[in-house]
Amino acid sequence: MNNTVKIVEVGPRDGLQNEAQPIDSAHKIALVNALSDAGLQVVEAGSFVNPKWVPQMAGSEAVFEGIARKAGVSYAALTPNLKGYERAIAVGASEVAIFAAASEAFSQKNINCSISESIERFAPIMDAARAAEIPVRGYVSCIAGCPYEGDIQPAKVAEVAKQLYDAGCYEISLGDTIGTGTPASIEAVITACAAVVPIEKLALHAHDTYGQALANIYRAIQLGVRVFDSSVAGLGGCPYAKGASGNVATEDLVYMLNGLGLDHGVDLHKLAQAGRDICAVLGRDSQSKVARALAAKCQ
Amino acid sequence: MNNTVKIVEVGPRDGLQNEAQPIDSAHKIALVNALSDAGLQVVEAGSFVNPKWVPQMAGSEAVFEGIARKAGVSYAALTPNLKGYERAIAVGASEVAIFAAASEAFSQKNINCSISESIERFAPIMDAARAAEIPVRGYVSCIAGCPYEGDIQPAKVAEVAKQLYDAGCYEISLGDTIGTGTPASIEAVITACAAVVPIEKLALHAHDTYGQALANIYRAIQLGVRVFDSSVAGLGGCPYAKGASGNVATEDLVYMLNGLGLDHGVDLHKLAQAGRDICAVLGRDSQSKVARALAAKCQ
Repeated sequence: MNNTVKIVEVGPRDGLQNEAQPIDSAHKIALVNALSDAGLQVVEAGSFVNPKWVPQMAGSEAVFEGIARKAGVSYAALTPNLKGYERAIAVGASEVAIFAAASEAFSQKNINCSISESIERFAPIMDAARAAEIPVRGYVSCIAGCPYEGDIQPAKVAEVAKQLYDAGCYEISLGDTIGTGTPASIEAVITACAAVVPIEKLALHAHDTYGQALANIYRAIQLGVRVFDSSVAGLGGCPYAKGASGNVATEDLVYMLNGLGLDHGVDLHKLAQAGRDICAVLGRDSQSKVARALAAKCQ
Repeated sequence: MNNTVKIVEVGPRDGLQNEAQPIDSAHKIALVNALSDAGLQVVEAGSFVNPKWVPQMAGSEAVFEGIARKAGVSYAALTPNLKGYERAIAVGASEVAIFAAASEAFSQKNINCSISESIERFAPIMDAARAAEIPVRGYVSCIAGCPYEGDIQPAKVAEVAKQLYDAGCYEISLGDTIGTGTPASIEAVITACAAVVPIEKLALHAHDTYGQALANIYRAIQLGVRVFDSSVAGLGGCPYAKGASGNVATEDLVYMLNGLGLDHGVDLHKLAQAGRDICAVLGRDSQSKVARALAAKCQ
């Protein structure tokens, strides 16, 4: 068994993007630096979307320009189009990410085109990234349910995952966007995807909206998945259920991995400190149960 | 595979006992009735301890006398000694529970005697219950860690579980009192216990202090455990880490069991309503992520 897990920390991008309150670049830079200091090897640091759509991500250039780069750490950027890709590369993004939905309804409502069209539109990024040897990660959303369609067939998820992999993505992150998956449905999705994409190229992006994230990750570990997306302090709510949880907290994931004896390279106490600091900036409680338990023990 | 899970709802006792705010018997009665209406078949409704020690549990007589008993539902009571047992039986408790720790330090600090002494002291209850054909459940605390001793050996847990089983307990509930277990340590405990007590007689009482409860329950299900203790709305904090979570929320457990296709007889929406009602009485948010997600969807 491969005992090493890769954690993709999405707090500074996916997390902060879904927080109600925008924060300034200096705090984002401090967060990214604290996360790399804690040992995280992939940190999604910003998004190069049009700031008119996502005001929380304005200033991603300043973040990439301001961070203290640590050797061996990949600083990732979400790039919706070639212009965004070029902006990301100009400020030294180590890798970029593109995205598609496993739900036609979600794709139409979210980006106003079909799933196939959305993947075709990324071709210029794939071409540019291939020429520049920039790794591209592919996100698939709604893998275990869609806020508009309801159930999603695992075969559909696998089809989209394969399209992104065939297009050149080095890793496919399977996102349970609304957090409705349980170990059984996550198993069905992973099994379907692993039949068409090598399992070591699959990541699980679990949301904890219904409290199922760690159970789902545990099932994925049993099935052989070794890459997990998570967000320090559980940053980021669920945009489809206001007030509900979104990303699984990195602290809670790391705690479980420690218990399972899996290597990940992250110092839990430094990570928890990074979470406390960003929560203080946001003026809200951590969504991480581990962070809250550790803080309570220290009182 | 046995597809039926038994849920032991501990909110009205273990949950409310660990809430800061005592509530009156009328609200407890309404809660117990709502839980049995929701389909729960075992409801721990009160504790017959000395009210000087646990003021939250004063009035357990009034609760047992006031509830609308539903056929097939077992109304359980915690009984620390023969006097408590007699009080519980006098008001019609269907079953009683006794308790021991898997940690000598915890036993000494909590009840001022060794583990063996604590089990010996329950002999009069076991004798009386046997004569009256009252089922007795045995709780073992600190199965995956102790606030005083730290790590607990699975062999020690198994030894205590076997002592309680041999003494006549019909079911042994393994309690991760401080919630530090992960699927690996819970597996070690269950495997050790199942070697000396039939696995169908084992229950897992998981706390979510570190967010691990559902992952641990999922692992236990894989290993064959089919009885789980949980608390509606996650009632009850962790007395060893103020402000941290305690019991896993019944709503979150039921949601996972639904996803896994396991039968349990509980109506999730009625259960969630029971949780909302008691949280309104307590004036606090639900600890159940499922309850919060369902409430957010309705906004």
